[in-house]
Amino acid sequence: MAQLFLALIHHPVVNRNGQVVTSAITSLDIHDLARSARTYGVDAFFVVHPIPEQREFAKSVIDHWRFDFGRAFDARRREALELVRIVPTLADACAEAEKIAGTRALIVHTSARTDRGQTFAAMRARLEAPDAPPAIIMLGTGFGMTPEMAERADILLEAIHGATDYNHLSVRAAGAIILDRLRGR
Amino acid sequence: MAQLFLALIHHPVVNRNGQVVTSAITSLDIHDLARSARTYGVDAFFVVHPIPEQREFAKSVIDHWRFDFGRAFDARRREALELVRIVPTLADACAEAEKIAGTRALIVHTSARTDRGQTFAAMRARLEAPDAPPAIIMLGTGFGMTPEMAERADILLEAIHGATDYNHLSVRAAGAIILDRLRGR
Repeated sequence: MAQLFLALIHHPVVNRNGQVVTSAITSLDIHDLARSARTYGVDAFFVVHPIPEQREFAKSVIDHWRFDFGRAFDARRREALELVRIVPTLADACAEAEKIAGTRALIVHTSARTDRGQTFAAMRARLEAPDAPPAIIMLGTGFGMTPEMAERADILLEAIHGATDYNHLSVRAAGAIILDRLRGR
Repeated sequence: MAQLFLALIHHPVVNRNGQVVTSAITSLDIHDLARSARTYGVDAFFVVHPIPEQREFAKSVIDHWRFDFGRAFDARRREALELVRIVPTLADACAEAEKIAGTRALIVHTSARTDRGQTFAAMRARLEAPDAPPAIIMLGTGFGMTPEMAERADILLEAIHGATDYNHLSVRAAGAIILDRLRGR
């Protein structure tokens, strides 16, 4: 089975008015997505942010649980957070993934607003194929990644369709569902 | 298709040491699960808490988005929060669900730690059957509901299996995955 990576993108994303912004890192995104990543056998979870102070904040969240009271307090949380890598750019995430996997990972774009893209079933089959290359699933924060991020991707994944036309899942919920569709038993 | 309800249980649940506790309501649980509920066509999302001050807090979270700046600021968030009903007990949730659906809803228990229970596929088929009765999916906070809550349920649902033995998804992630497995397209 292909190695799988997750990358949480904070820039470039859009806000509710469609303006290009850099979103803030939230500790809960890190915790929730790390636990989902750990559950579904993801090899590394990249938190991608261009601003050094924000990356420092993310590191402090993780160190708190890895080295301080969290280490004794909750080994399961620590175990999940060990997957997290804080990096400035998507290119850095790709470079680290390549180091881990030994080969270049395909970049997979996700969006709640797309009406095209590979189906989850096709993507899952692709990941399960013998000698399948590794893949990095990008998740956008804010109101989603800018169109240029889709252009940088090797694969576009279809949107998650619920039972209604409402498509405003949190990134924590969407990430969990995407991993379950690609890797759940 | 059967009407579907969600109930977030804060008591009785266990903490990391297995002690029976009452967990605190968090605004993010409400927001995330309301958005997932709205996405998957859930008819009402019950936040169940025995302590009046906690229920007041939950109401203030919702009112902020329904009536204050949130109303103008983010209609999509308001739309999700309109599904939320704050109630003291599971019995109250069941009574409200019965009022909405016109008939008694089956109580469905979920747990990350069970090794039995109906499969997601069987539960989904059951919900899709003609004239299927409505169902209330219970989600436990903290480290999960006490065993007595399983005894009160009509149906036990199997645990979510990821790709590893790690089973510590957040309730926000687990709720999203459960709804996707039961109702996703």
